[in-house]
Amino acid sequence: MKFYDCATAPSPRRVRIFLAEKGIGVPTVQVDLRNGEQFSTQFRAINPDATVPALELDNGTRIVDAIGICVYFEAMHPQPPLMGEGAEEKAVVATWQRLAERNGFYAVMEAFRNSTPGLKNRALPGPHDYAQIPALAERGRLRVGHFHEQMDARLAHSEFVAGARYTIADITTLVTVDFAGRAKLPIPEECSHLRRWHAQVSARPSAKA
Amino acid sequence: MKFYDCATAPSPRRVRIFLAEKGIGVPTVQVDLRNGEQFSTQFRAINPDATVPALELDNGTRIVDAIGICVYFEAMHPQPPLMGEGAEEKAVVATWQRLAERNGFYAVMEAFRNSTPGLKNRALPGPHDYAQIPALAERGRLRVGHFHEQMDARLAHSEFVAGARYTIADITTLVTVDFAGRAKLPIPEECSHLRRWHAQVSARPSAKA
Repeated sequence: MKFYDCATAPSPRRVRIFLAEKGIGVPTVQVDLRNGEQFSTQFRAINPDATVPALELDNGTRIVDAIGICVYFEAMHPQPPLMGEGAEEKAVVATWQRLAERNGFYAVMEAFRNSTPGLKNRALPGPHDYAQIPALAERGRLRVGHFHEQMDARLAHSEFVAGARYTIADITTLVTVDFAGRAKLPIPEECSHLRRWHAQVSARPSAKA
Repeated sequence: MKFYDCATAPSPRRVRIFLAEKGIGVPTVQVDLRNGEQFSTQFRAINPDATVPALELDNGTRIVDAIGICVYFEAMHPQPPLMGEGAEEKAVVATWQRLAERNGFYAVMEAFRNSTPGLKNRALPGPHDYAQIPALAERGRLRVGHFHEQMDARLAHSEFVAGARYTIADITTLVTVDFAGRAKLPIPEECSHLRRWHAQVSARPSAKA
């Protein structure tokens, strides 16, 4: 088994935290995104979509999506459950994970990729070039503000994002909040519930992953 | 149990097809998106995010995301499996479902919502207004073209999107392809494998849902 990672990128960090919470170690290969290694013939034979993370199983099957990889390890190593137990909890966790991704992670990506000088024509990850759209960077910044408010309201009456225990919804939210911080969109002072939660999940050893 | 639906909208259609494949009937309430019923006080008490689909369980829990709802029914009614069986198939199905959503469904939404006169300031679903960005409509159209090519290449050597059997990855792809057609982005003539697959999955009774 081989895990294709990039230590500085937010998408594979979702998997690294997930593995750390499960206590699973996987042989890891670093892909140098800064120098375009994801576009090399060698890496595109692993993932034609030219993105990390990717997981190669011993039988040759490749799983080329962060959540897809988490689904694999949740089924192989169910303890501790990070995607819920029973129909209702599984559904609630999936919903909050997706909401954090759609309203948060993708919004930071919009803000960051459409404004960073080094990412000209790389407004989206993947094999195709797309020009930066300045209005989209601005929209992304607005959306991240709404995301902070939405999560603050949620965490005012919930210990963790999806309920009473730590799940993959917390992982997506943590990676999103930290990615936003790097993009100069920190948690606003007034979002005290989101700050409480962020301090709490950042203190877990897995957050260093 | 109550399913909040809108018969003309693509997101809840994903759930309707999923339920039809499972042979499950759920009491359904239509939400009139065209007249803004999703923003009513009544509906926002069900889903503050102001989107359909939403599922309300008998204990009052609400699941406010299409895939979250499918996760619920997959756990309650495992047969026929639409999200894979065993760690590897589950992971591959989740990955293709997400790839179709990210590269396809969201791309059509970009093209459609940023150019439709009736959706001025509704460039994204949800409670917040965002202005249309013409350059984003254009980018969405380009992305849909790449999506058609990517799925055509995949279906050249796979009967269904995620492998040898029909899954939720086919549902997302079918809803995306039909949504693109409505947005005047039909499958290109030369994508013969995607056309073969589209005819095949459209002939299933569930496609009428």
